Amino acid sequence: MKSVRALIPDWISECRGTSLRDDLLAGTITAVLLVPQGMALALLAGLPPILGLYAGILPPILYALFGSSRTMAVGPASVAALLVATALGGLGHAPGSAEAIQGAITLAALSAVILLAMGFLRLGALANYLSHPVLAGFVSGAALVIIFSQLPQLTGVALPRDAALPEQLMALINGLAGLQPPLLLMGGCGMILLFLARTPLVLLLQKMGLQAGPAKLLSRCAPLMIVLLATGLTALLGLERLGIPVVGDIPAGLPQPSLDFLHLTDWRALLPAALVISIIGYVESVSVAKALAWRRRQRIDPNRELLALGAANAGAAFSGTMPVAGGFARSVVNFDAGARTQFAGIVTALLVALTALFLTPLFQSLPLPILAALIVVAVIPLIDLHTFRAAWHYDKADGLAMLITFLGVVLVDIEMGLLAGLCLSVIALLWRTSHPHVAVVGRVPGTDYYRNVSRHEVETWPNLLLLRIDESLYFANTAYVEQLVGNALAQRPEVRHVVLICTAMNHVDLSAVETLQGMALNLREAGVTLHLAGVKGPIMDRLRTSGLMEALGEGHIYFNTEQAVLDLVSQNRSPAHF
Amino acid sequence: MKSVRALIPDWISECRGTSLRDDLLAGTITAVLLVPQGMALALLAGLPPILGLYAGILPPILYALFGSSRTMAVGPASVAALLVATALGGLGHAPGSAEAIQGAITLAALSAVILLAMGFLRLGALANYLSHPVLAGFVSGAALVIIFSQLPQLTGVALPRDAALPEQLMALINGLAGLQPPLLLMGGCGMILLFLARTPLVLLLQKMGLQAGPAKLLSRCAPLMIVLLATGLTALLGLERLGIPVVGDIPAGLPQPSLDFLHLTDWRALLPAALVISIIGYVESVSVAKALAWRRRQRIDPNRELLALGAANAGAAFSGTMPVAGGFARSVVNFDAGARTQFAGIVTALLVALTALFLTPLFQSLPLPILAALIVVAVIPLIDLHTFRAAWHYDKADGLAMLITFLGVVLVDIEMGLLAGLCLSVIALLWRTSHPHVAVVGRVPGTDYYRNVSRHEVETWPNLLLLRIDESLYFANTAYVEQLVGNALAQRPEVRHVVLICTAMNHVDLSAVETLQGMALNLREAGVTLHLAGVKGPIMDRLRTSGLMEALGEGHIYFNTEQAVLDLVSQNRSPAHF
Repeated sequence: MKSVRALIPDWISECRGTSLRDDLLAGTITAVLLVPQGMALALLAGLPPILGLYAGILPPILYALFGSSRTMAVGPASVAALLVATALGGLGHAPGSAEAIQGAITLAALSAVILLAMGFLRLGALANYLSHPVLAGFVSGAALVIIFSQLPQLTGVALPRDAALPEQLMALINGLAGLQPPLLLMGGCGMILLFLARTPLVLLLQKMGLQAGPAKLLSRCAPLMIVLLATGLTALLGLERLGIPVVGDIPAGLPQPSLDFLHLTDWRALLPAALVISIIGYVESVSVAKALAWRRRQRIDPNRELLALGAANAGAAFSGTMPVAGGFARSVVNFDAGARTQFAGIVTALLVALTALFLTPLFQSLPLPILAALIVVAVIPLIDLHTFRAAWHYDKADGLAMLITFLGVVLVDIEMGLLAGLCLSVIALLWRTSHPHVAVVGRVPGTDYYRNVSRHEVETWPNLLLLRIDESLYFANTAYVEQLVGNALAQRPEVRHVVLICTAMNHVDLSAVETLQGMALNLREAGVTLHLAGVKGPIMDRLRTSGLMEALGEGHIYFNTEQAVLDLVSQNRSPAHF
Repeated sequence: MKSVRALIPDWISECRGTSLRDDLLAGTITAVLLVPQGMALALLAGLPPILGLYAGILPPILYALFGSSRTMAVGPASVAALLVATALGGLGHAPGSAEAIQGAITLAALSAVILLAMGFLRLGALANYLSHPVLAGFVSGAALVIIFSQLPQLTGVALPRDAALPEQLMALINGLAGLQPPLLLMGGCGMILLFLARTPLVLLLQKMGLQAGPAKLLSRCAPLMIVLLATGLTALLGLERLGIPVVGDIPAGLPQPSLDFLHLTDWRALLPAALVISIIGYVESVSVAKALAWRRRQRIDPNRELLALGAANAGAAFSGTMPVAGGFARSVVNFDAGARTQFAGIVTALLVALTALFLTPLFQSLPLPILAALIVVAVIPLIDLHTFRAAWHYDKADGLAMLITFLGVVLVDIEMGLLAGLCLSVIALLWRTSHPHVAVVGRVPGTDYYRNVSRHEVETWPNLLLLRIDESLYFANTAYVEQLVGNALAQRPEVRHVVLICTAMNHVDLSAVETLQGMALNLREAGVTLHLAGVKGPIMDRLRTSGLMEALGEGHIYFNTEQAVLDLVSQNRSPAHF
């Protein structure tokens, strides 16, 4: 029963009156942004522009039916498009060729399978293992690679595809003689206008007496206006004669539903790329969806997101286009434009479908430098210097993980960069937790508080050593802690009882239990008794089943430090103090 | 100055009177054990038996000069010998050939370089990342592989070298027709006598009126006695005619110091094996050294151990033999026999040298099945079912890591097994810490204690949500915690203040700070203020440098939960409660 109800989108019940009107407006604004962006992203991926529109029709409708985000806009996305381009380039498929299209469809189908499988296995939490600095480094690197990929369209200088960035930069410098001013001029103007169409235009419109709301809406229509303006100028003035390439004939019509993706050629070769596309697409989508849901106290279900994105990618494969994801920029536009439910996403999809059916002739003379400008302006904000500065400042390990990921993506290879970042963040975690803080403590006179002897004036007892361990004990730090205990004992030959204070331990693994056991036995041979204090309930339950209790021998596990001291000091009757 | 003093072994100053006499006895006992074991281990490694003696001369002397353990016995070791055999087999070198010897020397030289480099870089703590279950699984698997490697000598059935164990088992079953009863009889008798020479012999001798000490010493000489008895019988009765293979002519003499290892052939191919030999040898040696040092309150310096083991392996390469390590069994014998300082190790080395010089003709008729029996009896205790049971019982993740390592070593390949175990133990750690315990808490009436609302009768306030997080926050659990906070809030629409209680957090990484920051901002948009309480000093220092303080806005960081409640409840003046 629950599964049947889960098939009806939650948001249907919320569609009424104002909400419908808001969604209609927001969906329209988003469509206005999506049409030129979709075509540009398809070109970035090495596909015919119409496939960018196809990626904006069936996939968002499927997401709307299954997703848990009310306002995320699913469709073509920049990092996914770059990953498609890299994967197809790696197989040697020429941009726009039939093999490239077949490869993109295969990638979408594989992504659908991966995402659906992860969803059914409830592996949504796997994406959490990608830390923020690694993701930021990855996206920043990808954005830089995307910008370089647009330079041929903006300069007329041919750059080697699939080469590392330094090599591309050298080719650009060597090829500066072949610079084509018309391209540079059109692309440059496009970029400047697109930048101005953001905050400056909003401020200008507000100065002219417009409310903030309508000013923002107008600013969001600006990219389409700029595209139409450039297209009109190119057609009217015949700029094609100056060597400015245009989109050309776009076949009108809707995607032809196809099951082509069932003959998966190349699927083995494309599997690693599909895995990266799925994971990155999912992680980015979920973080967008979460950020938006928080603002309205809505919930995102990570496993439902996997299923919904899987369905959206199946829709992409079915429509014969490239993989899709939830895009950050378009989703924020949709949200800010007032979207309440996924009805907005369906409005966008229908408008894009109408464009694909009837309006493609409008874009025939659209100059490619303008589409390149659109992409560059869209991805520049993805280069996240802010996070890098914050990471470096907060913790060198986080900063290093981001830097290595970024450099790996830019200098070596997209997948290698991601892998390097993942490994480094795990190594940093191991390193950090393997050097826990361990303090020798004593009692603050007249209280039952125990504090670090090197920072406070506290009571101590010559044959009693109190050690507080500020970390969970596990294989990577157990030897370190053992070493610290050994050192502390070597300096205090008169000690007869050691109490480990475990209040900050959230877990104790088998390696740690065995170390404690060995420590207890070895200490007994040396005439010292090991005790524990302040052990949390769940840890205590496990310790009871282990051999530690026998190894402790005369040693006790005390409820807290005070109890340990009261018991051990009285039974020792150390004459120097009592 | 410090470095010059570090060159003089610490134990020199402790050598006097009784200590010298104890060391003399212990060193002799250890030598009596080492002579037959060394020859057996050399054969296991695929080398001439005399190289096993060579591995017991210069390497322990060098370890004695540089090592920090007083009582560890360094020399040929079973797992290292197996790893040498596997590596040489992988290169296709026939056992006993000149290429095999050159390969073993190369491995010793590479291990020396690796260990010395790790020592100079102070990377001793790296070995801590090998968890007890993974090490136990690895050693257990290696022991089973060693036992299978001895089956041809014990049965006369030829088994395929370098094949996985199931294949070897099939070959053994298929070859049962070729079973040679004389080998089986001699090997079987050898094993039974070697087992009886342990505890049963000690008990028998004690029953016969001997003290425990002398009884143990006699039992330790038994292996040599059994070897000499078998050799004598073989020579006297001419058992070679029955098809029992013997060690044969052993060239008498000391190792010829050689710098052959400077022409490192095959070194690229042998590097991975050398890495595993170094790391495993180091980890095993240090755990032995630590266990012994604890009993006398002595200290082990992991980085000095790396240097000393590196020197010992350089000595092995210089003597033209295989890599060495600190062996568990021989070290315990040395310790129990009363060794006080490394003078015992030097005594052992000198006695082994005398054996190599003058006594090799004694071992000419030593039957190989007896040496195989010696190895099998020595490695059976390494199959650690106890740890497996304990691990499985204590924590399925620990048990699984041990099982996968064991199966990887036995069924696939020694290095792959180790790698799989390492990966699995890191994955288990990530998994564990990524699902922290988070409790909604309330105040125990009349106190300032805060406890889980679902377990205790506590006061709560409708617009105040108190959440205690029992784990350090980092990238792998930050989304999970965010999700829990979101769920808790979705169930309580009237909440206006959320307080995260951070007393159990030992670290907060950048991903977590960013999540907290996003959470604070998103909550503000929803009209809820985020606060923290009980943040530890070092974490507080870092948070201050991050953007979290601005993101909190009206939110505070309270010293403890009580302070937060006093402040927030009074300013809210929620009429329902106050």
